[in-house]
Amino acid sequence: MNTSKPTLYTCLSPSLLHLYEVQDAIVVVIDVFRATSTIAAALYNGAEKIIPVDSVSGAIELGQELGAITAGERDGKIAPGLQHGNSPLEYPRSFVEGKTLVLTTTNGTRLLHMALRNGATEVITGSFANLSAVCNHLIASGRNVILGCAAWKDRVNMEDSLFAGAVVARVREHFQIFCDASLAAETLYRHTQVDTWNFIKKTTHYHRLASYGLEKDMEWCISVDVANVLPVYKEGALVVHS
Amino acid sequence: MNTSKPTLYTCLSPSLLHLYEVQDAIVVVIDVFRATSTIAAALYNGAEKIIPVDSVSGAIELGQELGAITAGERDGKIAPGLQHGNSPLEYPRSFVEGKTLVLTTTNGTRLLHMALRNGATEVITGSFANLSAVCNHLIASGRNVILGCAAWKDRVNMEDSLFAGAVVARVREHFQIFCDASLAAETLYRHTQVDTWNFIKKTTHYHRLASYGLEKDMEWCISVDVANVLPVYKEGALVVHS
Repeated sequence: MNTSKPTLYTCLSPSLLHLYEVQDAIVVVIDVFRATSTIAAALYNGAEKIIPVDSVSGAIELGQELGAITAGERDGKIAPGLQHGNSPLEYPRSFVEGKTLVLTTTNGTRLLHMALRNGATEVITGSFANLSAVCNHLIASGRNVILGCAAWKDRVNMEDSLFAGAVVARVREHFQIFCDASLAAETLYRHTQVDTWNFIKKTTHYHRLASYGLEKDMEWCISVDVANVLPVYKEGALVVHS
Repeated sequence: MNTSKPTLYTCLSPSLLHLYEVQDAIVVVIDVFRATSTIAAALYNGAEKIIPVDSVSGAIELGQELGAITAGERDGKIAPGLQHGNSPLEYPRSFVEGKTLVLTTTNGTRLLHMALRNGATEVITGSFANLSAVCNHLIASGRNVILGCAAWKDRVNMEDSLFAGAVVARVREHFQIFCDASLAAETLYRHTQVDTWNFIKKTTHYHRLASYGLEKDMEWCISVDVANVLPVYKEGALVVHS
């Protein structure tokens, strides 16, 4: 094992984050359905910044203060008091360019704030929509990495694990990876990538979101490099890495 | 979905156990390398009972009180003050028949006690060595099931996940399974079962145990039905289910 390489770990649930050394690492927040896909979409389409907020009331308050777009869902519907939903397809360039988006989501926002509180060196967000941007950045950085899956109410979920696996498959040779969660994620990804969409249909989140009519959203969210920017958290907001 | 079927969930780490309704369920404690393999081996070879204990000092004390065999390892060696190790191969019938074994292990014992504290209806232990006995019992019971992986210091590990997947693959039709961890475990198992041993060689625990010269142990631990009894926890000890 080449000990000069940085380490990479996959954390499959926020409830396991305390097991990893966040303080020295880049944390990739992964919430494929749909927070980190929507973040990639909005920034790719020219949004100036995205402010992640834990609560609906916090989003309403900050949105009014900044005159920003407020967005967020609870149970697949726009949360009362907010203007927009959590679909990446709601944020075309014609709507979002130059704007600030205040976004609240259940799982992704929480993990992002946990990573910050634990002293992560850098927090970026990842989804299939920006797979290459994430991988290229991790390889170039030369720093330790934690792939942090947002999961669903702390339960391990498939789509976030699969994205972690896609990253591991691409960056493996550049890191020391002594982590069964990374091996599991990569193995799942390699064996299902020939037909990711049909495999996704077996997952719990597919069934939850399909019951709200969100198949199109999910198809977009597992499409590779369709919004290939690198969102990085700086001074309270996610912006395109410069 | 047939709602009359009992539910099955896979819990990939003790740190996630709080997310599941343990109280109404049979919990299968899974610690393939090596606690639950050794438990199966000793009971299969006629041990009267196995008392799982959290600490080395507790094992020494109880062993003296009962005149029992004491066993347990720390870092791959017999723990100071104990008589025997944590290898399933150390417990042939000629040695263990009719005896009481006081066993302390790092991960498996802890999860077993967590399940009991959380009010599990029944706690059984599983490993490849008793795969069929576990599956047959789960199917016959008609109760909700949690497959509890002991993991390694709370980090998700491959061998316990693979065993959970082997169980899911066999019992799936008898349960409602709405759980991505179960889907992940089953998918990993199905795609690696043609050559489990070579896949196991990629895992973290393989490298840890191989460095102590324990390849033979591990090969035994992933062999199906070589000690096909059902250990169940009753009145403070694991005994063969009657």
